[in-house]
Amino acid sequence: MTAERHAPVRPLLQHAEMSQFAVRSGELVVGGMPLTRLAARVGQTPFYAYDRGLLRSRVAELRSALPAAVKLHYAMKANPMPALVCFMATLVDGIDVASAGELQVALDAGANPQEISFAGPGKRDAELRQAVAAGILVNLESARELRPLAAASEELGLPARVAVRVNPDFELKGSGMKMGGGPKPFGVDAEAVPALMRDIAAAGLRFEGFHLFAGSQNLRAEAICEAQRLSYALAVRLAAEAPTPILTVNLGGGFGIPYFPGERRLDLAPIGDNLAALVERAARELPEAALVLELGRFLVGEAGIYVCRVIDSKTSRGERFVVTDGGMHHHLAASGNFGQVVRRNYPVGLGCQMTAAPNGLTTVTGPLCTPLDKLAEQAPLADVSVGELVVVFQSGAYGITASPQQFLSHPPSAEVLV
Amino acid sequence: MTAERHAPVRPLLQHAEMSQFAVRSGELVVGGMPLTRLAARVGQTPFYAYDRGLLRSRVAELRSALPAAVKLHYAMKANPMPALVCFMATLVDGIDVASAGELQVALDAGANPQEISFAGPGKRDAELRQAVAAGILVNLESARELRPLAAASEELGLPARVAVRVNPDFELKGSGMKMGGGPKPFGVDAEAVPALMRDIAAAGLRFEGFHLFAGSQNLRAEAICEAQRLSYALAVRLAAEAPTPILTVNLGGGFGIPYFPGERRLDLAPIGDNLAALVERAARELPEAALVLELGRFLVGEAGIYVCRVIDSKTSRGERFVVTDGGMHHHLAASGNFGQVVRRNYPVGLGCQMTAAPNGLTTVTGPLCTPLDKLAEQAPLADVSVGELVVVFQSGAYGITASPQQFLSHPPSAEVLV
Repeated sequence: MTAERHAPVRPLLQHAEMSQFAVRSGELVVGGMPLTRLAARVGQTPFYAYDRGLLRSRVAELRSALPAAVKLHYAMKANPMPALVCFMATLVDGIDVASAGELQVALDAGANPQEISFAGPGKRDAELRQAVAAGILVNLESARELRPLAAASEELGLPARVAVRVNPDFELKGSGMKMGGGPKPFGVDAEAVPALMRDIAAAGLRFEGFHLFAGSQNLRAEAICEAQRLSYALAVRLAAEAPTPILTVNLGGGFGIPYFPGERRLDLAPIGDNLAALVERAARELPEAALVLELGRFLVGEAGIYVCRVIDSKTSRGERFVVTDGGMHHHLAASGNFGQVVRRNYPVGLGCQMTAAPNGLTTVTGPLCTPLDKLAEQAPLADVSVGELVVVFQSGAYGITASPQQFLSHPPSAEVLV
Repeated sequence: MTAERHAPVRPLLQHAEMSQFAVRSGELVVGGMPLTRLAARVGQTPFYAYDRGLLRSRVAELRSALPAAVKLHYAMKANPMPALVCFMATLVDGIDVASAGELQVALDAGANPQEISFAGPGKRDAELRQAVAAGILVNLESARELRPLAAASEELGLPARVAVRVNPDFELKGSGMKMGGGPKPFGVDAEAVPALMRDIAAAGLRFEGFHLFAGSQNLRAEAICEAQRLSYALAVRLAAEAPTPILTVNLGGGFGIPYFPGERRLDLAPIGDNLAALVERAARELPEAALVLELGRFLVGEAGIYVCRVIDSKTSRGERFVVTDGGMHHHLAASGNFGQVVRRNYPVGLGCQMTAAPNGLTTVTGPLCTPLDKLAEQAPLADVSVGELVVVFQSGAYGITASPQQFLSHPPSAEVLV
């Protein structure tokens, strides 16, 4: 056998390094506090923890990569924890809400109503009235919303502020979720927007601009740049038929974070360059308009972890399982049941063995009586003992509120901002 | 062109008829009440409604198909609504719980602790202590549970009642979810059970029998019969090494209900015949043992509906969409995100147009800003108006508690037993 006959070993796909968190003596540090101390301070497992320092540095990183003229909005659907929304409100330029419930939290957080916008395909009349009373911007998803908005405006003596959410005639390539292009329940088909804008003006509402949201969870900078260019161009085209000058063009979000093996962090530099060119064009073509980015997951996802404790450790027919006190009832996405087609592992680690070498493969499950309740399948982990802390990374977005918390009537998760 | 050249038209797969509910003048009747009146009595949409008459008739149907000696348990994880558990406790022989939270509801419902059993792979020590204090049967999932049970028994002066949940060496073919066979986090591998039974006896705990649960949501009677035969045979084999006579053999459940186009209701007759043969054998081979079936979904799933109201109706690029006030935040399973690999529609109807002919295909979505929020995709429906009631059938199990209710901070669903 010669050396030539060895095929090159293809390395197993790895998770992106969770280098955003410090590690001290092998232990994860969150918000400056070692994980075991944080668990003691929380007083229970499971819990979610979000790191203020990481939230702040993520926004700063974006600000430095993007032109100063671009406004950053936080789409709070990603994580509506009130304390976190309060903190984010001090960092970003505005908050995007998806329901009257979220609106309440955003207002309580001190966000400026002028910079709050509300999108959602099934707004109830009562919600539209709340939005008018609050003085926020409503992204129209349908011509039907006009009448209740006009009625609320008249009753309250406040002209509703509206933008049109446009269902574009293109989609964001390579997105985790496509939200524009083709037939969609979201927004108004681009070709129907001119007539709607005339109706808005006729109803005496205040027309402010456009909302375009092509997709989410995208890791390809070039795809995001293309969607932004196409969105901008569509806004310019539609602006030609607008009743009044455009004040705002929300280009959506779509910035992804690496969840699964083989995925890498998004490169912001080309997006910054692309937006700089659009800002320059907008100064000429839409001189009164602000360009807005609406980001949820990208701002908060990497700053959060979910922490649970090992209750049992067993070997069944040669495979290693650890059962924790946390699971899909708190973290549906990590279990693979939140829109994933094929289940893949989130990055998972042992909170006090962050630098230990893996020793074989271990499946991490929760306490629920269902095979769906998996936090990691055959993950490379060091030997795990009962009582140890298991950490699921990339858990700051679409975590606890996106999970079936009452399933099987287990205790709730705690949630802390540190 | 000759007649011979016409290929036979393959009929589109249909949903099983939702004939369990009456229809009067085209309107669905639930618990004897027309749906619009029920919606008025509930005072809001969305809501879940469960029909007592259907719960009662389903249990009666089972009783008449199965031998009288077989005990029926309700696995309340399927639907833990307290009023429903109270009602079910009067119909069945026992309740199976999956957490201390569920245990509390079962005890409040007046279930006899002697006939409550507790299974779950990650029982916390505090939960095991609660189980001992309640006097219920604990299905051991792991040797680790022995020590805390023995400690609680000694402290409370009550010997813990235990059965062993066995991870069998076979699986239930054609199940929606496989829960036994191969390496599993559930139960104790069959080959390790004899040693565990010796340890149970040595610890002074009361050993009562076995729990075998091979899978769930199966519509093939023959597969269920085979799993029951294999489970029974395994119990007999293990009983030979048991420290004391076997008092209970829980053969699990697995009885499915038809959710998707092309699925038909389970034929109970062969299962009844099969169980009659096992009861006869058990009278000789395990004379002190009761055979128990543990059913959740099959008892309650078809008795429940989810009702929401149309907020908007729109056509986007030629496709029809209706947007309702209900969605995946209340009914994750119907959205296709609760363990389904390929999204398929639950049976959906218009509450006041039950007898109207479909007029094309309509996609029913919820109010959430995500393409995951679908209740039905291109379903054959009559023309739908804003304000109409949309009904999702087969929603009595794994509904509201299996859903991410806080997602996007929309109002909660109501839940009624009628």
